[in-house]
Amino acid sequence: MPLMSGTYSTVRHDRGEDEVAIEEPLEIRVDGGALAVTMRTPGHDEELALGFLFGEGLIEGPRKAGPTADFAANTVEVEGPLARDPGSRRFYTTSSCGVCGKGALEEVAVHSAALPPGPMAARSSVAHLPELLEQPTFERTGGLHATGLFEPSGALLIAREDVGRHNAMDKVVGRALLDGLMPLGERILCVSGRLSFELVQKAAVAGAPILVGVGAPSSLAVSLAAERGLTLCGFARRGGMNVYTHPHRIRD
Amino acid sequence: MPLMSGTYSTVRHDRGEDEVAIEEPLEIRVDGGALAVTMRTPGHDEELALGFLFGEGLIEGPRKAGPTADFAANTVEVEGPLARDPGSRRFYTTSSCGVCGKGALEEVAVHSAALPPGPMAARSSVAHLPELLEQPTFERTGGLHATGLFEPSGALLIAREDVGRHNAMDKVVGRALLDGLMPLGERILCVSGRLSFELVQKAAVAGAPILVGVGAPSSLAVSLAAERGLTLCGFARRGGMNVYTHPHRIRD
Repeated sequence: MPLMSGTYSTVRHDRGEDEVAIEEPLEIRVDGGALAVTMRTPGHDEELALGFLFGEGLIEGPRKAGPTADFAANTVEVEGPLARDPGSRRFYTTSSCGVCGKGALEEVAVHSAALPPGPMAARSSVAHLPELLEQPTFERTGGLHATGLFEPSGALLIAREDVGRHNAMDKVVGRALLDGLMPLGERILCVSGRLSFELVQKAAVAGAPILVGVGAPSSLAVSLAAERGLTLCGFARRGGMNVYTHPHRIRD
Repeated sequence: MPLMSGTYSTVRHDRGEDEVAIEEPLEIRVDGGALAVTMRTPGHDEELALGFLFGEGLIEGPRKAGPTADFAANTVEVEGPLARDPGSRRFYTTSSCGVCGKGALEEVAVHSAALPPGPMAARSSVAHLPELLEQPTFERTGGLHATGLFEPSGALLIAREDVGRHNAMDKVVGRALLDGLMPLGERILCVSGRLSFELVQKAAVAGAPILVGVGAPSSLAVSLAAERGLTLCGFARRGGMNVYTHPHRIRD
């Protein structure tokens, strides 16, 4: 687990003091131009920027990313050019939103290649993945979502936390891009919360054939997973879970 | 509690069948023109539209709202004109995002009038509010957020559920608008989850001086509550809670 920085701060309240998860805006610039602002937990900003751009279909591989030339706070610079025109809009995303600045649902759908047959994984192993998802800052603050990338064996490869569930996923995808692990066809993504449309889409765009969540899926998450060929597992707790779509990748 | 419709559907999975929270897009039109698309749980769409527009500072009181003339599915029509120009952008919000289509953090801040001194409420009473927040659909699906409007005595006035936490808040504010309860200066808002920037802002714009959450606040939620004069209570569970800002409204 890499060092996490800036993920919590101590605040005083009427009964003493407490650590709270930090939520701050990050401006993502491409070749010097502002493209998106997202509310996020500081740390791993380059990964977040790359994972976000990949999930939007705006880059197709790793890019150079880092502080801006003037070292502006809460700003990250990514080297262009983009794979497609992002349109005239800039993106604004809150700490719990993944896709914004778009006018209608059909614009939200991002193309993803067909998912591979992918790994076969044991039900008992998959259902225990959430317990293996390290959440050091959640334990301090109770305020963070997490995403983990796992081998089918249960080995944890990457884990990231954020106030925004989509940001935690973007950070993992960004790290996987930088480490040359894409696409994620033989691996499993696991999230600490509920399974929404946006998380299924990000997993599909990253090529991950199995997505596991501790919480419930929404109806649109189930229908998108069914359409994209993704195995969607919800309520993964204490060794039990429900497999909503494409259960052929899960063996008893 | 009014009848809730369309909030869950039954899906089959490999171990049987299950009810999942419905997530579908809603297009909000004003005088026939599309203004926003939000991912939401169907039901109380007029309230959602009015609460959203109020929280964005686009309307200042109740408006006529209902189905469009052609009864298009997943579309709600609100009578204009708006109180201010929404700008050239349309909004797109996912099921967990409240403020989108904006270019930078400063544009996200919505003006709110100074909060009144507001009610004094007993710590023991406030800390038990989450248990009084009715969540019939959550009990079926595990997939919904809830917001409740309470009297300081603990009496529940309005409760709404949604896949998006900001939507549940918007629905409550919209209902309060229609019922002539605005501003909410003598009442308490309570949410089932974490306390983000956007929820604090919506509560402040609605004039509610006390916001209570079952979960943790983010750092930006605490700083915005401090600035706006709002009493922010987190981790309200089993009679205990932390009061992060303006504790003078809470008595032991």
